Amino acid sequence: MTDTVTPVAPAPTAYDDTTAADAARAYELDRRHVFHSWSAQAEIDPMVVTRAEGSWLWDGAGNRLLDFTSQLVFTNLGHQHPRVVRAIQEQAATLCTVAPSSVNAARSEAARLIASHTPDGLDRIFFTNGGADANEHAIRMARLHTGRPKVLSRYRSYHGGTQLAINVTGDPRRWANDSASTGTVHFFGPFLYRSAFSATTEAEECERALAHLEQVIALEGPQTIAAIMLESIPGTAGIMVPPPGYLTGVRELCDRHGILLIADEVMAGFGRSGRWFAVEHDGVTPDLLTFAKGVNSGYVPLGGVAISEAVHQTFAHRSYPGGLTYSGHPLACAAAVATIETMEDERVVEHAAALGQEVFGPGLEELAGRHDWIGEVRGTGVFWALELVSDRATREPLAPYGGSSPQMAAVLAACKREGLLPMSNFNRIHVVPPLTISAEEARTGLAMLDRALTAARADA
Amino acid sequence: MTDTVTPVAPAPTAYDDTTAADAARAYELDRRHVFHSWSAQAEIDPMVVTRAEGSWLWDGAGNRLLDFTSQLVFTNLGHQHPRVVRAIQEQAATLCTVAPSSVNAARSEAARLIASHTPDGLDRIFFTNGGADANEHAIRMARLHTGRPKVLSRYRSYHGGTQLAINVTGDPRRWANDSASTGTVHFFGPFLYRSAFSATTEAEECERALAHLEQVIALEGPQTIAAIMLESIPGTAGIMVPPPGYLTGVRELCDRHGILLIADEVMAGFGRSGRWFAVEHDGVTPDLLTFAKGVNSGYVPLGGVAISEAVHQTFAHRSYPGGLTYSGHPLACAAAVATIETMEDERVVEHAAALGQEVFGPGLEELAGRHDWIGEVRGTGVFWALELVSDRATREPLAPYGGSSPQMAAVLAACKREGLLPMSNFNRIHVVPPLTISAEEARTGLAMLDRALTAARADA
Ligand SMILES: Cc1ncc(COP(=O)(O)O)c(C=O)c1O
Ligand SMILES: Cc1ncc(COP(=O)(O)O)c(C=O)c1O
Repeated sequence: MTDTVTPVAPAPTAYDDTTAADAARAYELDRRHVFHSWSAQAEIDPMVVTRAEGSWLWDGAGNRLLDFTSQLVFTNLGHQHPRVVRAIQEQAATLCTVAPSSVNAARSEAARLIASHTPDGLDRIFFTNGGADANEHAIRMARLHTGRPKVLSRYRSYHGGTQLAINVTGDPRRWANDSASTGTVHFFGPFLYRSAFSATTEAEECERALAHLEQVIALEGPQTIAAIMLESIPGTAGIMVPPPGYLTGVRELCDRHGILLIADEVMAGFGRSGRWFAVEHDGVTPDLLTFAKGVNSGYVPLGGVAISEAVHQTFAHRSYPGGLTYSGHPLACAAAVATIETMEDERVVEHAAALGQEVFGPGLEELAGRHDWIGEVRGTGVFWALELVSDRATREPLAPYGGSSPQMAAVLAACKREGLLPMSNFNRIHVVPPLTISAEEARTGLAMLDRALTAARADA
Repeated sequence: MTDTVTPVAPAPTAYDDTTAADAARAYELDRRHVFHSWSAQAEIDPMVVTRAEGSWLWDGAGNRLLDFTSQLVFTNLGHQHPRVVRAIQEQAATLCTVAPSSVNAARSEAARLIASHTPDGLDRIFFTNGGADANEHAIRMARLHTGRPKVLSRYRSYHGGTQLAINVTGDPRRWANDSASTGTVHFFGPFLYRSAFSATTEAEECERALAHLEQVIALEGPQTIAAIMLESIPGTAGIMVPPPGYLTGVRELCDRHGILLIADEVMAGFGRSGRWFAVEHDGVTPDLLTFAKGVNSGYVPLGGVAISEAVHQTFAHRSYPGGLTYSGHPLACAAAVATIETMEDERVVEHAAALGQEVFGPGLEELAGRHDWIGEVRGTGVFWALELVSDRATREPLAPYGGSSPQMAAVLAACKREGLLPMSNFNRIHVVPPLTISAEEARTGLAMLDRALTAARADA
């Protein structure tokens, strides 16, 4: 595959250019008019991004940074992949938009391509604008299909920012919005490093997590449960690859009780884990699979739900009571077509798997050997987490759950000084660059991280 | 302003072209893979759209149709406006996407331009992907700002498809999803033609609707109410322009009780009513104003909330607990910048107002004079509804609330035969073409509608 991306010349009248004056104006207008998500508005000092290319971006002062975040883990093809840019430009010239009730060639083709990669039988695609609404609609489909009210989801998960999606979420972002929404129930998933089950091996963690879920189902009442919603690999919550057999076990519990399995592949899907979808690691087919982000590398907002034939049949002669103005937006779908074709042609998923095995896995373990703040290295493909701890024996996190700490702030600042854009969550550093990063760039980034950890430790 | 739009030549490899074989393939793939919103999947026969330009589009058989729908009332600038197409292409070449936490020039400029048109003081813009999430976030802001749980909204309204948005909605699409979501309460708004208050004049309807709302507030408990959410002019529910003084009266009730006023301008905003925002007709400033659709003519998914300084201050040093991956998406924002600049330069809002006064108002009244199925003509700008009735005296609707009828089906079929794409809801025909439609095209469309009504009446 091609690891480097040919830059596309910015058009002269485009809004972004690299002059300092323009960056200053963008900053000033942002501070005056843009309300930022998940933030105290007066306490942020956001970075201006003027340009980006492949795995790199440039800030307002002209500094080049290696993007180890893929933004919010969505630019799977990196920035400005010329084939996707071209597809957007061509679709814009042809037909930017059309109502969801029509048939449109870009939408049809995107649906076909997505269905060709989802697990067998998930052949019907309902398009949304992003991940949150994909999850909201998947839950709705499950409730109407089963006639049951409840949905079970994991603690340590993120499913989106709208009211129902944030209520099924199992992270601190739920707290301020928690209306204990009708029928949302949380359970513990497998996470050996911080086991909720006092387990000491992966096999034990798997077995106990399944027994726990079985108890929750029994005590909630199986006939009240429409669905179990799971990130196939929890992303923001810590990239906890489930032990082999866990997803299969959940699938069996679902089958036994007529509960639907909803796999949230918004972050894990489209190659990030080294497979097209992370459920493939366990060979599991969910009833509903939600996606967004990687489906078109986030170049145009798009998400969706891949739907089993049984659920589809429920709505064959009964109206599905849900929708949105931009369902199957042609511009977003054209970007998805180009993204998926590029991933196929450039063997991006295979590259991601190889990077995980050959570069990130060994490279991060090597870092762990040198930095005792690193309590655990977890991941697969281009989807890795470092669990930072102040004490390896007690596993005391370097920042509290839901918060930050001077040590974590020092690590992030040191990364930026090295020219690395890092992703963090509480006490963790996530290593989630574009899947198209070259082995060399990946090693460059790991070396930056290495030096940053040393510098931060010296400061602390 | 320019009424005709220069077509942009479709690129050769674009997904849409006009060959019958391609249309047939798009149709076949759609039926096999695309799950459609608000539909029984096996009972629809969607139209292929291969091309569109200004107020016209082409179906899979090559027939040209005059678009009296603006799709779902969002292509306010018509299809393929060259300036917006160019802006998308240029932004795509520069920087398709960036995380919401950064500063980006297209986003900053879009926020500035939107704030320059919203009522005074609504200067902070939180961007979403569409209307539903805009409303979800506006409700969240109101709840956190006031510390109160409830939100009051109108029967006969539509606020979006996600769980909270559909629960505040007051139309039949809520029914199948109704979880009587915590703190959603419905009241009756003014609608003289089908008055809930036995009123006989607009002034009486206004007074009684306000007295009703005052009672609902008193009986729900003012200190439990975070917000009243209203479409400034209810759109899908029937384009009921509120009587003068109603919105002012609601604003006063809100002020008296510390309740926030949320104006949903997703459909009415960005010129459709003949003003930038429909609240301007009554000179009312809401605390939060939600938008989507017209903000960029739907060329790229975008919505948002314009926020008062007081609400912004609530989140100055306290984190706003909400967000989404594509908040302030550069491609969507670049399309908004081009759309708003075009609306300013081509005086599109003034054109919309003039069309309402000179063409649609008188033209539709004339139709009502000739067709006794037309019980009432309502609207303003390019935002009109015909209330169709089987009996003018009893006002018996031509289709039941929430349903259709052979007569309504006959009207729609006759429109299509005339070459007109009509928008309908239950017993109503909405006349909502692009704001850029020329007076001549508008008159052509009205003549088609005239002939269609005659033909349908003859068939019935
Ligand atoms: C696993 C998962 N699900 C859902 C979402 C929500 O997606 P969006 O922000 O597009 O609504 C995210 C976003 O980070 C996610 O990581
Ligand atoms: C008034 C109003 N609010 C909200 C919405 C929901 O917008 P979206 O479909 O983009 O979620 C609509 C859509 O028609 C609308 O008309």
